[in-house]
Amino acid sequence: MRVARAINSLVEAFERLPGIGPKTAQRLTYYLLHVPQTELDRFAAALTNLKRDTQECNMCHNVAETNPCDICSDTRRDQSTICVVEQPLDVLALETSNGYLGVYHVLHGVIYPLHNIGPEEIKLGELLNRLPQASEIILALNPTMEGEATCLYLKKQLEARYFAGKVTRLAHGLPVGADIQYADNQTLSHAMNGRKDY
Amino acid sequence: MRVARAINSLVEAFERLPGIGPKTAQRLTYYLLHVPQTELDRFAAALTNLKRDTQECNMCHNVAETNPCDICSDTRRDQSTICVVEQPLDVLALETSNGYLGVYHVLHGVIYPLHNIGPEEIKLGELLNRLPQASEIILALNPTMEGEATCLYLKKQLEARYFAGKVTRLAHGLPVGADIQYADNQTLSHAMNGRKDY
Repeated sequence: MRVARAINSLVEAFERLPGIGPKTAQRLTYYLLHVPQTELDRFAAALTNLKRDTQECNMCHNVAETNPCDICSDTRRDQSTICVVEQPLDVLALETSNGYLGVYHVLHGVIYPLHNIGPEEIKLGELLNRLPQASEIILALNPTMEGEATCLYLKKQLEARYFAGKVTRLAHGLPVGADIQYADNQTLSHAMNGRKDY
Repeated sequence: MRVARAINSLVEAFERLPGIGPKTAQRLTYYLLHVPQTELDRFAAALTNLKRDTQECNMCHNVAETNPCDICSDTRRDQSTICVVEQPLDVLALETSNGYLGVYHVLHGVIYPLHNIGPEEIKLGELLNRLPQASEIILALNPTMEGEATCLYLKKQLEARYFAGKVTRLAHGLPVGADIQYADNQTLSHAMNGRKDY
């Protein structure tokens, strides 16, 4: 049996997405066969317009509709507190948590020598250019080997530039709802060392 | 923070797919921001053309490029052996297993009174119209309550029409690679009752 080309090309497009295997790609494609054509057209338009209707903010390098983005141009936000994150999705997560009123800087990656990603490949120089207006740099990189290495590199760069402001990191410890019994050693030692008065 | 409309509309389109939640939809959308525009355009074209470039075969009601489909018009296949399945994906699965040389009939569902799906809502009448050319009907519906009920209903219809050919069902038993220890009761009793000479 020869599967219709129209079906095959959509299955292949879905398969190229991360975390979607051949079976899921088939399931999604055959599901879409039952969906009205108008909805397929809307989906297709969203895909083609995704990059056309967005741009990178020249200040924080987040993906946004305008340049500068609405966070960087928001006068009610503290433009001197810069939270450094790896990816645009991290900004989204921190914004949904709704507690932060400073601005961001998206590095678009971390230093990863094994993958040939050095300081030049991520938006580190752009962050150092923003130092004159900064009073606090919050390091909100993921607690991976590469994230830690990038933090260390960044700290040295800040010292070399005699950065006078504060440099802070997100707190490590037990996540809300977690069970001490099942927490890993590192998390527990972070939680113990970072304990607070009650 | 206001997320760009272009991002939101793609996230919403992904969320409408079965098995894709809000987090996965976000992850896929932000992944696609790094993909070349040509690939986005190809994905979009595959979506809009999915239903335009496929049609339902008038014989077996499978989704195909031509009507009748390449299986129904294949003279090397036994056109008198009809395998009845629920969905087009079942045809794909049976075809990949590469052992079957008859034709198919896709019901596009099963009788499901709770969801208001009666015999009229699926392609049962169309199957009964094909009886004059049939010598064997293979029931390959899923072993669910509704699948069993549909099989029973179909069997009665065949008897009422004095269908002279064979009516068979797919074998039930232990799947290849399964462990007897972890098999459920029904599967084990099917496997025991259907045992064969060795």
